[in-house]
Amino acid sequence: MKRFFSVDDVANLDELIQNAIEIKKAPLQKSELGKSKTLGLVFLNSSLRTRLSTQKAAQNLGLNTIVLNANQEAWIWEFEDNAIMNGGTVEHIKDAANVLSQYCDIIGIRCFAGLESKEEDTSEKIYSLFEKFATVPVISLESATLHPLQSLADCITIEEHKPKNRKPKVVLTWAPHIKSIPHAVGNSFAQWMNKTDCEFVITHPKGYELDTKFTQNATIENNQEIALQGADFVYIKNWSSFEKYGKTLPIEEDWLLTNKKLEVTNNAKIMHCLPVRRNVEVSDEVLDSEHSLIYKQANNRTFAAQVILEKILESDGNA
Amino acid sequence: MKRFFSVDDVANLDELIQNAIEIKKAPLQKSELGKSKTLGLVFLNSSLRTRLSTQKAAQNLGLNTIVLNANQEAWIWEFEDNAIMNGGTVEHIKDAANVLSQYCDIIGIRCFAGLESKEEDTSEKIYSLFEKFATVPVISLESATLHPLQSLADCITIEEHKPKNRKPKVVLTWAPHIKSIPHAVGNSFAQWMNKTDCEFVITHPKGYELDTKFTQNATIENNQEIALQGADFVYIKNWSSFEKYGKTLPIEEDWLLTNKKLEVTNNAKIMHCLPVRRNVEVSDEVLDSEHSLIYKQANNRTFAAQVILEKILESDGNA
Amino acid sequence: MKRFFSVDDVANLDELIQNAIEIKKAPLQKSELGKSKTLGLVFLNSSLRTRLSTQKAAQNLGLNTIVLNANQEAWIWEFEDNAIMNGGTVEHIKDAANVLSQYCDIIGIRCFAGLESKEEDTSEKIYSLFEKFATVPVISLESATLHPLQSLADCITIEEHKPKNRKPKVVLTWAPHIKSIPHAVGNSFAQWMNKTDCEFVITHPKGYELDTKFTQNATIENNQEIALQGADFVYIKNWSSFEKYGKTLPIEEDWLLTNKKLEVTNNAKIMHCLPVRRNVEVSDEVLDSEHSLIYKQANNRTFAAQVILEKILESDGNA
Repeated sequence: MKRFFSVDDVANLDELIQNAIEIKKAPLQKSELGKSKTLGLVFLNSSLRTRLSTQKAAQNLGLNTIVLNANQEAWIWEFEDNAIMNGGTVEHIKDAANVLSQYCDIIGIRCFAGLESKEEDTSEKIYSLFEKFATVPVISLESATLHPLQSLADCITIEEHKPKNRKPKVVLTWAPHIKSIPHAVGNSFAQWMNKTDCEFVITHPKGYELDTKFTQNATIENNQEIALQGADFVYIKNWSSFEKYGKTLPIEEDWLLTNKKLEVTNNAKIMHCLPVRRNVEVSDEVLDSEHSLIYKQANNRTFAAQVILEKILESDGNA
Repeated sequence: MKRFFSVDDVANLDELIQNAIEIKKAPLQKSELGKSKTLGLVFLNSSLRTRLSTQKAAQNLGLNTIVLNANQEAWIWEFEDNAIMNGGTVEHIKDAANVLSQYCDIIGIRCFAGLESKEEDTSEKIYSLFEKFATVPVISLESATLHPLQSLADCITIEEHKPKNRKPKVVLTWAPHIKSIPHAVGNSFAQWMNKTDCEFVITHPKGYELDTKFTQNATIENNQEIALQGADFVYIKNWSSFEKYGKTLPIEEDWLLTNKKLEVTNNAKIMHCLPVRRNVEVSDEVLDSEHSLIYKQANNRTFAAQVILEKILESDGNA
Repeated sequence: MKRFFSVDDVANLDELIQNAIEIKKAPLQKSELGKSKTLGLVFLNSSLRTRLSTQKAAQNLGLNTIVLNANQEAWIWEFEDNAIMNGGTVEHIKDAANVLSQYCDIIGIRCFAGLESKEEDTSEKIYSLFEKFATVPVISLESATLHPLQSLADCITIEEHKPKNRKPKVVLTWAPHIKSIPHAVGNSFAQWMNKTDCEFVITHPKGYELDTKFTQNATIENNQEIALQGADFVYIKNWSSFEKYGKTLPIEEDWLLTNKKLEVTNNAKIMHCLPVRRNVEVSDEVLDSEHSLIYKQANNRTFAAQVILEKILESDGNA
């Protein structure tokens, strides 16, 4: 593996999930694989789970890690080609990516959607530029449109909890929020679910359609109650409008999930990527119920990161 | 040891101090004890000594360390139970503590007193919530009311410098300041001194009484000159009023310690936890005198942290 | 080696450069040299290259590293002797340097020029105080007047690319900028070039003379075109006025370097320490040309740091 930006970089998803589950059983089996190599973790945005789980994964592989909060600790980046840099930006991403590649064997970067320009976000402007100018493998720690390490952890978690001998029904439901939130987790979950053997349904109010580039032929059901019927897994996440890009639209129905609403499911397991605004996106009773997998998902972030780092380190030798 | 929040978590204080002194002589003797384990250090407030000494202690034990400046690098935490999180907080401490426990084998957390609500601070609201929801051992890097790693380092320092063959006189003296300062260092020093074999006196202006929960039956003497007589150790520290919670009160006398005032002591050793506002809390001549132990205290922070981490790692195997 | 502040701390520069080139060929040959020792990296200012390359160098030597963004993560420092600290500063540099020395075997510190007081900057007030009160070897990660790790990396880069069998011509050219920039990189490059076997020319508009303490007997040529003639290396850097301290002066001529202007050189290699404001200091076409060494310089930062850390660690045993 030379990059990890989306599910399209995965040769065999079932195998990758099984590999991660094997790693979870014995996380220190390749504790020398990353020896004397350096993983750089570059954050243009806040991070808790990604920051810690990726460091933990690196430690399990004997990889050194250097963390850089780029805007706070280094210099504000310029993203425009041919820019005359006479404003607030101090270093071009071209130079930053090239320079970071001098010190790191693998670089992870987090660069959220700005939600101001649909064109910039959907073209993955920042991530693409960084990857273009980096000279070492780059992995996404969440970009403008996708969050692949989260989705891989979600796949591992579903694999561990799915019913035996039948295809699970997985429902991704939109949730309320007070702010405009990027589409990355929703897009990414849809993209990965579309590659697994499940019945996948997305439910959201009209106007909150995700980019069809990622949802593809998933079933879209605007009635949350109908969507939830018989669900084995309910994944809860807010996102802003994609059509009216980055906007929040007035919603008449109540989309806050409660245990009452979940009664129509098949005792569905509850999933959320966290952080979650409790009692705004989801009620406490749902998050803290016995069906909640939220901390198990967080735990699997380590093994998602570790299997990807392993794949990159192992292909590195053959590069 | 499963937690380290106060002296009450210490089974045998004399033994703990001796263990720390042994570690100081050979700090690398258990350099494999923490192998493949991870210490998370979570800071909700600034830190120099605690930040570095605890990392150094971890390195001596072969422990990996991950540092998180939670508010700057991750998300603003919510502390209210059942909160409807539609304001500025993004992640509930319940979720943060649970998630951090997925990646760390031990977590240290620093959460200063806010000095706005006496009830919140004295109930150790933040620390208690974090510990409640964490699923791994938690150690205090200074909480609202106590600073146990500092106090343990202070005990080690006193043990190293105390007179032979007699009980030392230890005086904790209030010092002036320009800001409202928490009570944690003062409370904690009193709590630990009350468990050691010394004559312990606290001196402060009237109105600056510490919480009797921590001072217990220590001698309180409002006349600084009388208190200092014959002292072997003088520990200098400011704190705000506890009764008029978090307030600074007008003081008529001069409480700034000078060498002149120290003449009534028994060539007392000078102690301060640092940072210190020079010539406001203490005069330069006192801090820089040959009797000053301030850097030796700082040095002992490493071995205080190391002995605690060792106790936790060693009990971990039997959990 | 007990300190690394300027070229004056280098006993034999040619040998140091050769040592660094040897390290580059086999960076892990002394991967146990720093074992169980700790390098502290203290930043009072932003850093990308220095931050990462010095960590990478430390990792190659088996040194543990602790990074401290002092103002953001710890306390604001006081620099005045005998200060009555009743303002915004919380910890005296005297105490900070002494305390950091309790946890670190070597300390690197970055403290840029403030450009407000010529006397404070030229006396290296902050760096000197830190070094005075530290009790372990201190290395400069760029101080008010010098940037020695950058200059050493530049020397390595020139050594690797210089013409065989003749002395190279090296030109340091002033470049435009929109802000007032310190003199450290310019001063330092001049100081180091003066110690190597080259024809060294500095070109800048009148009014932009560097401190003669560092330029010494280097040739100064105010006509950029004349200066560039026959150059083998062109080092591009902005700095503010030294005489009218920290000011930017109105310039009539066009000092932005283009490929056209470089035609008079001997196919000169292009150097810049980065970060660079593209198309303000230098045009894209120059930075991205086949003659550009900017990323090779960045790469050599690791080996510059590593050779210095090695020298200090090796002399440490004999201390």
